[in-house]
Amino acid sequence: MIRCGIIGYGFLGKKLAGYLTRYKMRGLAITALANSRGYLYYPKGFDSDNLPADITGHTSFRASNPLEILERGLVDLLVTLTPTNVYNGEPGLTYIREALKSGVDVVTADKGPLVVAFRELTSLADSMGVFLCYEATVGGGIPVFSLARHSLRGDRILSIKGILNGTTNYILSRMHFEGLPLDLALQEAQMMGLAERDPSLDLEGIDSACKIVILANALLGADRRLEDVKVKGITQVTSDAILAAKELGMTIKLVGSIEGGRLSVAPRLVRLNHPLCVHGSLNAIQFKMEILGDLTLIGRGAGESTVSALLSDIEWILAQKEASRGGR
Amino acid sequence: MIRCGIIGYGFLGKKLAGYLTRYKMRGLAITALANSRGYLYYPKGFDSDNLPADITGHTSFRASNPLEILERGLVDLLVTLTPTNVYNGEPGLTYIREALKSGVDVVTADKGPLVVAFRELTSLADSMGVFLCYEATVGGGIPVFSLARHSLRGDRILSIKGILNGTTNYILSRMHFEGLPLDLALQEAQMMGLAERDPSLDLEGIDSACKIVILANALLGADRRLEDVKVKGITQVTSDAILAAKELGMTIKLVGSIEGGRLSVAPRLVRLNHPLCVHGSLNAIQFKMEILGDLTLIGRGAGESTVSALLSDIEWILAQKEASRGGR
Repeated sequence: MIRCGIIGYGFLGKKLAGYLTRYKMRGLAITALANSRGYLYYPKGFDSDNLPADITGHTSFRASNPLEILERGLVDLLVTLTPTNVYNGEPGLTYIREALKSGVDVVTADKGPLVVAFRELTSLADSMGVFLCYEATVGGGIPVFSLARHSLRGDRILSIKGILNGTTNYILSRMHFEGLPLDLALQEAQMMGLAERDPSLDLEGIDSACKIVILANALLGADRRLEDVKVKGITQVTSDAILAAKELGMTIKLVGSIEGGRLSVAPRLVRLNHPLCVHGSLNAIQFKMEILGDLTLIGRGAGESTVSALLSDIEWILAQKEASRGGR
Repeated sequence: MIRCGIIGYGFLGKKLAGYLTRYKMRGLAITALANSRGYLYYPKGFDSDNLPADITGHTSFRASNPLEILERGLVDLLVTLTPTNVYNGEPGLTYIREALKSGVDVVTADKGPLVVAFRELTSLADSMGVFLCYEATVGGGIPVFSLARHSLRGDRILSIKGILNGTTNYILSRMHFEGLPLDLALQEAQMMGLAERDPSLDLEGIDSACKIVILANALLGADRRLEDVKVKGITQVTSDAILAAKELGMTIKLVGSIEGGRLSVAPRLVRLNHPLCVHGSLNAIQFKMEILGDLTLIGRGAGESTVSALLSDIEWILAQKEASRGGR
């Protein structure tokens, strides 16, 4: 039985736990649910009918450092879904580092740790012989890393471009289609739950830059950090500029790119009939391949669809463990 | 050493052979090049400097049934790239069937055999313990099957939609953007080498229907054939109809779909800003997933990009063989 712990029991954590209760017969049980204030341990593994709505108020909640689930050896696989600080990677960085050091496999949706310490963490995972999977960090449910690793073998990625932030894309789309000014489009996004109360990481392009760093490190063998990305956000984009673009059959999108070793995020003119030109809160990622040419993936970049990426990582780990236990 | 034979030495076969000469140090050598009239056998394996421009005129060409390379046990892996008859699957069907029966792995770009005999061939491959890979049959280089199998685990495909034929999409795009009538757009496509002299399989939707059959059988566990697809081509689509659609922010595309067990190909209204709405000779495939929602892939559907799909299949077979020889 693989004992799975989840640190971060908010929207994503609850959705994921709901799906994972179905995995018990396949040998995976959720034995620990944690947040920054403590954890709930249930060695038999939660089922759909006893999965708690809230953990902190639960009678068995143990107020403590969640790292205790590692120190006490309560889990074999740790999923971290914590609010990410992109400058120091915490709290996810500590959770992930300690898990890998303890020989525990990790699946994460936290961008911060991978932006701050990509090579340290992947090397640590390699040296410990454990898995570190992070499909959910870029493009929500779009299987970017899995696709690049399993499905594009025999070809070579030359460059990557993407619309990687749903909040700014929603805002720019409303400016394009409704002629709204940026501040009104932002208010609308906030009312719809698509933007944070403090939307600066999104608007200033930092969130997109984080994803560009992870893509460069994971898929192009780079060793980059946030400060290596030339970043410009959308705060200076006016509806007049978008209107002018529209008259030329184009629009303005916040595009992240990795080309010839240069990492950048900036508002760019994009033709309306270009495959990358997606609207609303959609994300799009385009690989330029040596043989295949351009390959574009489009999907929802956030919300419940991210659970699909987490499950894909977990399934992959299960498959590797089954394969290494013998048989094909 | 894995000895690889290629039946079909036209544009694709030559491109593929060129790339495969690089695989010699990885344990794969091209030992046989064949067409319908015979074959060239070179046990040492062709290199980039002795790869023939033409095989039939070669001094060592053996005029014979190409199946002789199987009967004589000259190859371990067969790639078939033959002009496909979608009604009887030949000549690829016989080549593939005989290869699988001989315990030879198969990689193919031939749609016909998979449309006519999908279950027979996949069962035969399973029972013989060999691989049958067909990534190149749908969407050119877009890694449809690989993605669905390796990257969407833990989620479930509910339905599939796609623009699967580059020729008709080119014609409809020219009708949309330039207001050309269908016959002129077709002539243009023929001059550019995007349409066959007899374009009826494309225009009447048969080529798209073949791809829908393969997708349904491979990804949704169906057992369907061409006659199970409700097909309508684009021959009745007028520039007036496209103009009327354009005024509503839409256009007309030839869309193949698998929804609730119904397979169809027909001209459909598609919103211009819908992810599926790609132009020119691009292909697009959209999966509706249970958790992830809609995931769209866009890429070149034909030509050299197809080589990327063939190489991806070959790489996958190499990786499986390496894994089964021990080690991770």
